[in-house]
Amino acid sequence: MSNEVCVVGSVALDSVETPGGRADDQLGGSCSYFSLAAAFFAPVNMVGVVGRDFPDEKRDFLASRGINMDGLDTVDGDTFRWSGRYHENMNVRDTLDLQLNVFESFNPRLSEACRKSDFVFLANIIPSVQAGVLEQFDSPLIVGADTMDIYIDDAREDLEALLKNVDLLSINDSEAVQLAGEANVVRAARRILDMGPDTLLVKRGEYGALQFSADDIFAVPAFPLETVVDPTGAGDCFAGGLFGSLAEAGEVNRRSLRRAVVYGSVVASFAVEGFGVEGLRQVEREDVERRFREFMALTDFHTE
Amino acid sequence: MSNEVCVVGSVALDSVETPGGRADDQLGGSCSYFSLAAAFFAPVNMVGVVGRDFPDEKRDFLASRGINMDGLDTVDGDTFRWSGRYHENMNVRDTLDLQLNVFESFNPRLSEACRKSDFVFLANIIPSVQAGVLEQFDSPLIVGADTMDIYIDDAREDLEALLKNVDLLSINDSEAVQLAGEANVVRAARRILDMGPDTLLVKRGEYGALQFSADDIFAVPAFPLETVVDPTGAGDCFAGGLFGSLAEAGEVNRRSLRRAVVYGSVVASFAVEGFGVEGLRQVEREDVERRFREFMALTDFHTE
Repeated sequence: MSNEVCVVGSVALDSVETPGGRADDQLGGSCSYFSLAAAFFAPVNMVGVVGRDFPDEKRDFLASRGINMDGLDTVDGDTFRWSGRYHENMNVRDTLDLQLNVFESFNPRLSEACRKSDFVFLANIIPSVQAGVLEQFDSPLIVGADTMDIYIDDAREDLEALLKNVDLLSINDSEAVQLAGEANVVRAARRILDMGPDTLLVKRGEYGALQFSADDIFAVPAFPLETVVDPTGAGDCFAGGLFGSLAEAGEVNRRSLRRAVVYGSVVASFAVEGFGVEGLRQVEREDVERRFREFMALTDFHTE
Repeated sequence: MSNEVCVVGSVALDSVETPGGRADDQLGGSCSYFSLAAAFFAPVNMVGVVGRDFPDEKRDFLASRGINMDGLDTVDGDTFRWSGRYHENMNVRDTLDLQLNVFESFNPRLSEACRKSDFVFLANIIPSVQAGVLEQFDSPLIVGADTMDIYIDDAREDLEALLKNVDLLSINDSEAVQLAGEANVVRAARRILDMGPDTLLVKRGEYGALQFSADDIFAVPAFPLETVVDPTGAGDCFAGGLFGSLAEAGEVNRRSLRRAVVYGSVVASFAVEGFGVEGLRQVEREDVERRFREFMALTDFHTE
């Protein structure tokens, strides 16, 4: 078994406005956030596509975190661009502009090395592409996936087919309700587990997360933050921290899954403290460990 | 020191409509919910007022839980009545009718026994009445209080004066934001602690609660429920369970406060499983303990 993580998803240049400021041409995309988060814990292979305009500075930053970019294709055209604006209540945002560019024809062929990965994550892209990638892997120990509202609505058949082959689905609470057609999150989770996944992570933003399996529920609050600069990518960082931690543990069980959720939450909490990936730029593994210990103190009524 | 709890607040007859049904003339009011919740853990003295129409059946139920009702005055007139309707999203409700009746002139004189109480809770009533009651106590170990949006807006001066003499304030997240004039809950909490309380409990409904003190934050998720019948009184039950647990512990420190928050959350989770106080009717202390243990399993990543 290898403890390498392979993640397939979008790599983008984001422009974000929040009540507190704005930042243009930030490194973004689900694959970028996930990779940076997972790289605290394990070797990461990112699979994605960018255009000729993708800045060397972004590439260098990813490389500086030890992320293997052999699977990041550079092709003629422009990189995927997204711009959005957050409301005063940072739980709500509007997409101002979306240009798929080179991402529109993204249909990756995995390298021999990637095919052998044990920890596979299909970040938020169209379900048929997720499925096309998934079938190229040899025999992963665990397959995770994310999705979003538009695919739940417009590509439900493909998504449901994919979910039969997904071990861990990571979505937010409104997506869980939408996917299950059930307003109560506990009942929604049960329906989603019936669709295939063994484990469901329901992310609730500033309120924390719930992780469901057939016979277990794990609940964690979010790390309370005085400053939230930009929530973009928090969910991808959560999933990346979770998968990285699982890969480091080298096994998937109740204990490793629970600790992985806390690590995911910790990495996400750093990410939202800056624009784009800036919140993670200065963070080292020892900072992650310090906040993990703070998280234990924050939630502990067990051991005293 | 005595471990008796004394709570001052409203006793009402509620009519509630939810997406799932309706129930009329239910036992309600902050004092009723608080008392029933606290009574799982400690002797409770309730101080309130009802009219001649208050049914014996309600009185008998309170008495069956060992609640001392010497401080519950019965006067000429009708009992406080509230009726409300919950939206599909049970976090939102409309008040359909409110008749203060005998509660309008509520201005209690405490008995000698009540004055000696060490665990005092001023449930959600007008701040000037809370202050008038508070000055009648001899020297409580801890004074808790609740309040609500209309008092934060319309009686801010009285409320701020009261808060100087309150040790633990229990409010929900929107009230915390309103009271502090600060949208971030961590910064809002710091401002509220500066107003007087040593401890602030911020209730977040189905998302759990945060408890703040000068040098500590404790975060707990809510117990995940498949069925929420009626959220009315959940916050009062949370505070009641918390105060009852503190009184049982007989001391106020980091450990007892944290366990008390979990007990508060547990009792509130039972309360919302039925209309009015019905969710608590069949619950015994052993059920509370069982759910406390389930809560430990739900949140544990510390001890494995």
